[in-house]
Amino acid sequence: MNRRMILYVLGKILRVEAILLLFPFIIGLIYHEKAAFVYLLVAFGSLLLSFIPGNSKPRNTGINAVEGFVMVALGWILLSLVGCIPFIATGEIPNFLNAFFETVSGFTTTGASILPDVSFLSRASLFWRSFTHFIGGMGILVFIMAVLPISKGGGDLYIMRAESPGPDVGKLVPRSRSTARILYSLYIGISLLMVIFLLFGGNTVYESFLIMFGTAGTGGFSITAGGMGDFSHYSQIIITIFMALYGINFNLYFLLVLGKVKDILKSDELKVYLGVMALSMIVISINISGMYNSFGDAFRDSAFQVSSMLTSTGYTTANYDIWPDLSKAIIMAIMCMGACAGSTGGGFKVARVVILWKYAKQELFKLTHKRSVRNVVFEGKPLESKTVQSTLTFLIAYVFIIVFSTILISIDGKGLLTSLGGAIATINNTGPGFGINGAVGNYAAFSILSKIVFIFNMLLGRLEIFPFLIMLGSIRKKR
Amino acid sequence: MNRRMILYVLGKILRVEAILLLFPFIIGLIYHEKAAFVYLLVAFGSLLLSFIPGNSKPRNTGINAVEGFVMVALGWILLSLVGCIPFIATGEIPNFLNAFFETVSGFTTTGASILPDVSFLSRASLFWRSFTHFIGGMGILVFIMAVLPISKGGGDLYIMRAESPGPDVGKLVPRSRSTARILYSLYIGISLLMVIFLLFGGNTVYESFLIMFGTAGTGGFSITAGGMGDFSHYSQIIITIFMALYGINFNLYFLLVLGKVKDILKSDELKVYLGVMALSMIVISINISGMYNSFGDAFRDSAFQVSSMLTSTGYTTANYDIWPDLSKAIIMAIMCMGACAGSTGGGFKVARVVILWKYAKQELFKLTHKRSVRNVVFEGKPLESKTVQSTLTFLIAYVFIIVFSTILISIDGKGLLTSLGGAIATINNTGPGFGINGAVGNYAAFSILSKIVFIFNMLLGRLEIFPFLIMLGSIRKKR
Repeated sequence: MNRRMILYVLGKILRVEAILLLFPFIIGLIYHEKAAFVYLLVAFGSLLLSFIPGNSKPRNTGINAVEGFVMVALGWILLSLVGCIPFIATGEIPNFLNAFFETVSGFTTTGASILPDVSFLSRASLFWRSFTHFIGGMGILVFIMAVLPISKGGGDLYIMRAESPGPDVGKLVPRSRSTARILYSLYIGISLLMVIFLLFGGNTVYESFLIMFGTAGTGGFSITAGGMGDFSHYSQIIITIFMALYGINFNLYFLLVLGKVKDILKSDELKVYLGVMALSMIVISINISGMYNSFGDAFRDSAFQVSSMLTSTGYTTANYDIWPDLSKAIIMAIMCMGACAGSTGGGFKVARVVILWKYAKQELFKLTHKRSVRNVVFEGKPLESKTVQSTLTFLIAYVFIIVFSTILISIDGKGLLTSLGGAIATINNTGPGFGINGAVGNYAAFSILSKIVFIFNMLLGRLEIFPFLIMLGSIRKKR
Repeated sequence: MNRRMILYVLGKILRVEAILLLFPFIIGLIYHEKAAFVYLLVAFGSLLLSFIPGNSKPRNTGINAVEGFVMVALGWILLSLVGCIPFIATGEIPNFLNAFFETVSGFTTTGASILPDVSFLSRASLFWRSFTHFIGGMGILVFIMAVLPISKGGGDLYIMRAESPGPDVGKLVPRSRSTARILYSLYIGISLLMVIFLLFGGNTVYESFLIMFGTAGTGGFSITAGGMGDFSHYSQIIITIFMALYGINFNLYFLLVLGKVKDILKSDELKVYLGVMALSMIVISINISGMYNSFGDAFRDSAFQVSSMLTSTGYTTANYDIWPDLSKAIIMAIMCMGACAGSTGGGFKVARVVILWKYAKQELFKLTHKRSVRNVVFEGKPLESKTVQSTLTFLIAYVFIIVFSTILISIDGKGLLTSLGGAIATINNTGPGFGINGAVGNYAAFSILSKIVFIFNMLLGRLEIFPFLIMLGSIRKKR
């Protein structure tokens, strides 16, 4: 294990976090809040801490896949540990576990909150809370990589794979660093476009940025007590569209920039993603139409909630908990399915669902046609068996985690559906579940054990399970 | 497709069913019931019908895997179609869909009932209803095979594989027919032992046999209005033990007969099965102990329900729907896990869970150790990749079926947990779910669509998904 290299990168993360903490400091200054100085102090502390591992780059910067996984897993824990200090220090979330929960929920773009009401937060803290979504969406290490190369050889690619969502990250261009830059450019480009649209709808600069942060990272922290229902229909429609856009594989935007529109239209994953989205929107609109004055209103709420839940954002404009069972069942199913691989969205990922569906069809075909040796074709290419195997392993781990965490959460006795919904809403980085932690609820009432399980699930979900399991495995081995 | 052979075997099934229908006829005679003659008439009709495909064995009795699957799937549908006629003809379950539901539930050893009260059933019909569990438990075609060989070459093995539970049926002895005989001998042996124990507890001959039928097939149809709580503690304990025994792979009993006790103790599956059972019993006892006067009472109810739900029997002595969430979550989880492969129990099967767990561990290990080429070892032998692949395919199909059927059932609006519970309780052939179809409820109130979905799930579950999907696939191909 290249420990020096891991420590070196952790130091880099602390330094970047110090810079990021200056943003809420500036916001606090603008609004004349005392909280500003807490953020400045924590930024300074994070900078100091970053010198402990030493400033000099190790001679051997090469890392293997395991080290890449461990680095990313530890990096995200460290990021959240430092990131939660301002909430505690300002006294706005005095309890450590709650503050850590909220910060992990932010960075992992889950959007599950322990705050019943956000109106008492300082503007600096409300900004920082939403800003963590933006940072977590594309990944902190990919960000660092965009600025400077971390590791020689295949190291950068390992880190990228560990941090980016989806069964297999193809490099857009041969160099990892260039890929990271392209991804971040697209991310920032789309985000600025969204801010412009929101400003155009009469939202303030502050609001527009915060709403964008929650959308871009598919995070979903609400910035008002009433959720997104407090904003205009125009804003809701803009958010609906952008949530859906952030849920698309960023490779496709790169193809768009290159003008390869035909290649985009061929994407299996995109077709299924848009198909499931459209179908869910229509079925739910019809199912809930009796609760609305017009079909248009029903469709707007249906579209918002579907776009939000499918992409794992978790913004809400309606209390889907009181919708008919069919709508709730569809919402639960699309929560699990999630967005496209290579997007900022969470969940199981459409790509994996398509791969598994095709694999199962192929295997059933083999049962009846002994001599056939067909490969599973995905996105126009035969799938490598390595990708299929890792997808299958992911499925197994995913199912086991949902079952075990539901059992642990159920000790709390908040209702079985709430326990299951909580497990699903955290492992998929969605946020709201069903019941007390549903569309109009929060996670405050759960026990310490449940909160720890939720934190685990959120981290497992955002880093797509393997990095975390491998980190835990390598700790056990050392003992 | 060897259609003549498929028709020939369907004819055989009708003839065997005609014989089986004579048992309720005799029961009816003993108790002087008019229903007796209905059973005699249906038996006669079934015999007549069996002559349509012709009596002579086709020259080419060879069948391939697909034909084996199709034969078993069609056979089970035919068996249930004929088996439900007496319920309609006696007027005891006048509605066709309900009668068919009840019969499919019987043969598939699910035990889900549309009857709120069984006390109005004639003794003949109550007998037939429970008797279907006994027939379905070990399989109708395996029974026919035990009496006479069906197909030459590998045909018998294909049929056996399609009808027997578990990822891969090893033949106990080289000849399929001998294997079938051994299995049925063990089945009948254990069942007679159980009847003796029940008689010893003061139950009548009629009761003892009916309780045994429901236990042996891990079916779970209740024979009184109050479920198994109506019987003595002694009987409950006997049932608890025998449910657990029927959930064990019958290969192990064969080893026991051969005196190979050491080999039994080495079984990975048995260890996990007993471990999960013991752990669930203990955790639930502690969790529910506050609801009981003594820990002993709590343990007896916990043990009964765990043994029943893990083996997919579905007998109940307590309303677990009012137990704390933790107990309910565990019950739902063990419902899905199910019993051992090669037992009469349903569910996903312990063997598959163990195989998947080992596969996932192995693949995670591979991620970090590139050059390793280890095989997954199960029951002392390296697993064939074919078995692993079919287990993975099974998992995918299983998850998709649960998700889709939950969505369809949720249209009924009986509560999301009830919809999910119903989907799980039928695909795993357990019977009772959560809510209106829970421990003290039934399936009467569901819509036609939901009942059709339940029927599909029960058949899919009992025949372990593939035969049914392949049959549907081969119908589609012909068009």
